[in-house]
Amino acid sequence: MMQDNAPLVGILMGSDSDFEVMKEAGKVLKEFGISFEMSVTSAHRTPARTHDYAQSAAGRGLRVLIVGAGAAAHLAGVVASITDLPVIGVPLSATELQGMDALLATVQMPGGIPVATMAIGKAGARNAALFAARILALGDAAVATRYRAHVARMAGEVTAKHEALQVRLKDW
Amino acid sequence: MMQDNAPLVGILMGSDSDFEVMKEAGKVLKEFGISFEMSVTSAHRTPARTHDYAQSAAGRGLRVLIVGAGAAAHLAGVVASITDLPVIGVPLSATELQGMDALLATVQMPGGIPVATMAIGKAGARNAALFAARILALGDAAVATRYRAHVARMAGEVTAKHEALQVRLKDW
Amino acid sequence: MMQDNAPLVGILMGSDSDFEVMKEAGKVLKEFGISFEMSVTSAHRTPARTHDYAQSAAGRGLRVLIVGAGAAAHLAGVVASITDLPVIGVPLSATELQGMDALLATVQMPGGIPVATMAIGKAGARNAALFAARILALGDAAVATRYRAHVARMAGEVTAKHEALQVRLKDW
Amino acid sequence: MMQDNAPLVGILMGSDSDFEVMKEAGKVLKEFGISFEMSVTSAHRTPARTHDYAQSAAGRGLRVLIVGAGAAAHLAGVVASITDLPVIGVPLSATELQGMDALLATVQMPGGIPVATMAIGKAGARNAALFAARILALGDAAVATRYRAHVARMAGEVTAKHEALQVRLKDW
Amino acid sequence: MMQDNAPLVGILMGSDSDFEVMKEAGKVLKEFGISFEMSVTSAHRTPARTHDYAQSAAGRGLRVLIVGAGAAAHLAGVVASITDLPVIGVPLSATELQGMDALLATVQMPGGIPVATMAIGKAGARNAALFAARILALGDAAVATRYRAHVARMAGEVTAKHEALQVRLKDW
Amino acid sequence: MMQDNAPLVGILMGSDSDFEVMKEAGKVLKEFGISFEMSVTSAHRTPARTHDYAQSAAGRGLRVLIVGAGAAAHLAGVVASITDLPVIGVPLSATELQGMDALLATVQMPGGIPVATMAIGKAGARNAALFAARILALGDAAVATRYRAHVARMAGEVTAKHEALQVRLKDW
Amino acid sequence: MMQDNAPLVGILMGSDSDFEVMKEAGKVLKEFGISFEMSVTSAHRTPARTHDYAQSAAGRGLRVLIVGAGAAAHLAGVVASITDLPVIGVPLSATELQGMDALLATVQMPGGIPVATMAIGKAGARNAALFAARILALGDAAVATRYRAHVARMAGEVTAKHEALQVRLKDW
Amino acid sequence: MMQDNAPLVGILMGSDSDFEVMKEAGKVLKEFGISFEMSVTSAHRTPARTHDYAQSAAGRGLRVLIVGAGAAAHLAGVVASITDLPVIGVPLSATELQGMDALLATVQMPGGIPVATMAIGKAGARNAALFAARILALGDAAVATRYRAHVARMAGEVTAKHEALQVRLKDW
Repeated sequence: MMQDNAPLVGILMGSDSDFEVMKEAGKVLKEFGISFEMSVTSAHRTPARTHDYAQSAAGRGLRVLIVGAGAAAHLAGVVASITDLPVIGVPLSATELQGMDALLATVQMPGGIPVATMAIGKAGARNAALFAARILALGDAAVATRYRAHVARMAGEVTAKHEALQVRLKDW
Repeated sequence: MMQDNAPLVGILMGSDSDFEVMKEAGKVLKEFGISFEMSVTSAHRTPARTHDYAQSAAGRGLRVLIVGAGAAAHLAGVVASITDLPVIGVPLSATELQGMDALLATVQMPGGIPVATMAIGKAGARNAALFAARILALGDAAVATRYRAHVARMAGEVTAKHEALQVRLKDW
Repeated sequence: MMQDNAPLVGILMGSDSDFEVMKEAGKVLKEFGISFEMSVTSAHRTPARTHDYAQSAAGRGLRVLIVGAGAAAHLAGVVASITDLPVIGVPLSATELQGMDALLATVQMPGGIPVATMAIGKAGARNAALFAARILALGDAAVATRYRAHVARMAGEVTAKHEALQVRLKDW
Repeated sequence: MMQDNAPLVGILMGSDSDFEVMKEAGKVLKEFGISFEMSVTSAHRTPARTHDYAQSAAGRGLRVLIVGAGAAAHLAGVVASITDLPVIGVPLSATELQGMDALLATVQMPGGIPVATMAIGKAGARNAALFAARILALGDAAVATRYRAHVARMAGEVTAKHEALQVRLKDW
Repeated sequence: MMQDNAPLVGILMGSDSDFEVMKEAGKVLKEFGISFEMSVTSAHRTPARTHDYAQSAAGRGLRVLIVGAGAAAHLAGVVASITDLPVIGVPLSATELQGMDALLATVQMPGGIPVATMAIGKAGARNAALFAARILALGDAAVATRYRAHVARMAGEVTAKHEALQVRLKDW
Repeated sequence: MMQDNAPLVGILMGSDSDFEVMKEAGKVLKEFGISFEMSVTSAHRTPARTHDYAQSAAGRGLRVLIVGAGAAAHLAGVVASITDLPVIGVPLSATELQGMDALLATVQMPGGIPVATMAIGKAGARNAALFAARILALGDAAVATRYRAHVARMAGEVTAKHEALQVRLKDW
Repeated sequence: MMQDNAPLVGILMGSDSDFEVMKEAGKVLKEFGISFEMSVTSAHRTPARTHDYAQSAAGRGLRVLIVGAGAAAHLAGVVASITDLPVIGVPLSATELQGMDALLATVQMPGGIPVATMAIGKAGARNAALFAARILALGDAAVATRYRAHVARMAGEVTAKHEALQVRLKDW
Repeated sequence: MMQDNAPLVGILMGSDSDFEVMKEAGKVLKEFGISFEMSVTSAHRTPARTHDYAQSAAGRGLRVLIVGAGAAAHLAGVVASITDLPVIGVPLSATELQGMDALLATVQMPGGIPVATMAIGKAGARNAALFAARILALGDAAVATRYRAHVARMAGEVTAKHEALQVRLKDW
């Protein structure tokens, strides 16, 4: 667990080698003050452990699950088949196919069990956390306010980069 | 608007030719008793109208937006850049590339603006509505109860199909 | 169950709509006199049922499992994570992506849990049964003998088609 | 702004990290003596700023817009939906999919709003500027003359490389 | 030639079987009152004829060329290597690869010779004509006015479709 | 054998279902008066027969082999590993992947054994025969003359189609 | 040969440059105490040698063959067309297409000759050995016991990684 | 020119940056004692020069042309549309798409003009030369003899690598 309060978001990953990417989700949640936990569990190597996690998630107070997985990425779908919580999938580039395998194995869920899929890799991990924030903001005005501020800050950064580029172009 | 109560879910599509697919989302929402509205608006042909829709969505009481679009599918991303509501994207097969273009144009959102992407086509439309139900169930026990029932019903249908197959195999 | 004797091969499919393809596997097993059963079970819609099937498969005398699934095809991997029996995956074309999604979701299993993947669709279903026969032939001389005969028969068919083509070409 | 005269070409990019690629367009325009400006604006992070830029572009004297974007590259399409100026899109390789996502998100525009798409990356940025020059040359004889000279110079370079290769081959 | 006045736009196609798609470009140009001609010429079967067309195009008063081609689509690139006019490429779906071959063979032009590539098929053909109109509008106020009207008409059509959908939804 | 004289070209196919495509090669060879034979043999089902064919081909007077195969198309490579004759591969669309599998399995031969690969399907079958004609023309002036005539006839057909289109456009 | 006892598994590779990947299969077999041999033989460069290997494999006591190959990977299919033993194919990334060519050339075997395909590269090599162990375990209780232990060990490693991550997260 | 005798094979490339790959073809031809020349010429930058080369190739005594090109690789097709000599295309990896664009732009030639396509990159360049040798061997017994020796040498190298691997495995 990352914070004192009980975690609202669970971040799962199939291997600790996914941490470098999935910590991007944690960074964003920290920025929003949203409590979270991070766990390593594998759809294939630890099916029982994965099942137990998904089964108990809602009861433990978790509201959203973020699941990163690479290769034939089954983890998000497996988790979503057990819990009714919103599950956000982040396809990871872990093979020669550079994440295209993970993307299709995550997004092409057959009708019945939804997985909300984000972009491959770090951008996807960041957006997964932002999407969790959008969900939580529906019931938490403080998160909603921080989200608005985040959007404004992003816009400000783009403007600042534009200004910096103008300076750089002067000497070109 | 589909129901007497103010809609909680807005279903957007870029063209009325997308209705055949996107109505699958409506069917699921009806099953859950979740009020919704359906609108035709285009990221490219009616940018102002799209902007106004996204801008006013939260204020009008909408909680989740489901956006179907084909080809270079920009509609979900454009909407998500204006509203802070959770936006679910459904890539549609509208070109020779059979939805792969719409999938990549929807799911590969750069870090900052999340779109929760579902599978291409009807399965994706159904799952988009189920995902909206998962989000709404976080704050609405009645939806949560119906969701549990839905999951049980799905499982029952698989079992029934299994039994029917056993009968069929007897004569094989 | 297809035969009087206890089944040696279990054929699984995620939906009864997969039967048209997966029965090709059954046809081949019949030809070899290998007893088998066919079941409908879904990785996502009936996870408990799938788990129980996989858990009990070896104990019930099954020796090889053949698993057909489409879209983000998780069924073969999920089954292989629970049983130690050889699991053969058949990717099915069930979406706009024509089986490429099912292929990658089946074949790109991360290191640790193997799924023996066959071609997409009917050719894959046939070859799954032939591969099961190759495995069973290791411990069953009768199957081995029938396999040799099958190979000779296939060769004979090619030769016959060649002869028929020569006749056809005479009038060209 | 790059030159004293009012810019005729606007080069847009979604992030300052795109500058290394998009400056190739600037180099070509400099070679042709075509005035231009470069701006950072994002379809998703700064939608209002992007809208204002596109809305005012023609009025400020711009004649052609060159837009580079990566991932689910919406910027060119969004700009083209607001302005009537010719918009040239340059897909950038910014994700694990190496620009294929940006290519499809740029080129597969649905009927109604055209984006003239170039190759992925630096070759595309250079060609975007050359294409802008071809457009401007229709109304500017000086640009047309410089374009002819450019074509002749390119041909000369190929011939020179051929000659250099012959020398190199002598010692082989 | 389609009109009394000398054509401003030349539409080329590699085979008369491409006419069904490329006439979409013609329809749009007619709507804009832009004179055009349509020609069949092949990069590979009639290289001399293609060369002569491209060589003489500007001199005959043509301002923009629209080139449709399928398979290993070389026609647009070959034409663009001879003329300095803006060349717009429309990839056609003419093989088992459904236009992906034509798209890459058209859009991935190496630095030096630009081809402005549109979407595969009819959407691309329509957009090619709209892009030609955007180019011509830079020097022709009448075309610019008609373009504005076209954009407004498209927006009106979307709104009308939205209204029709609302009627349809009442009975749902 | 198709003609009285000993065949110069051998056309191989893995299955008689490939005949509809591969007869396009036969038609072209007939047009050129090049004697040929057509055979059904499979790399996998009849490896011995395939080996014997390839082994004896040169000795029987064959000069070029044209090999059509679909799916994981090994036939051309297997034949080329036994004979030193030029082997031309035609990838066929025989699976859900529409020939992309056959294309890669034919063209991506590792260094050491070359297979001259043509386009997928009928265009490839025709071009395979034309390429065989180009090879044979190196040592046969009659074939060379017929090839020249063929090229001129193709050009004439394009011109005729252009003229027919002009007539058709008059009434548009 | 790796062990004193006669090898049960034959590992083939088309080139010694494949050893770095294929030795992963050897490592797993060593861990299971399964005797094996490793051979370099090429479908194309040494067809006779490959034929002899496949022809004699069963007679020499081999029970399973693991075949790694890259590019237009024909080796597994060629071997499977001669022997009746179970053949497991490992597609290798040996070209610019990063193993997608080898994957399709291995997995898309036409009906009649099965190749059990694993993931591209090292994960596939490891899983090939694990799959061989699953096959051998059907007739060898000692292997079956070791397999169970292997699965438990894998699960333990995941749990340990989870615990390590929790420690790491404390300082975050 | 590489040898004293007039060249029989012309190797073309679109840019001198392709030399590192295309020299592999030269090495093989040298090994066979086949005289050749290497030229830089571009389909797009030097269309006239390319035309003249193709037009005069047969008259100058060339028998086979090998053409390497990357990106939207038109050079082989353009050359094949002018000469009747056999043209062998080598797709080069020159863009973010790693040669897939060049492969499709080379191999998917429409019916009428054949280009014999080899694998992407160095393997393709080597095989192009080997294929040229196969063609020339039809009319030149010395080349045929050297080809046989080459095949035997390749086989010997594989065997030697196998032996070396056995030594290496002893210490494993």
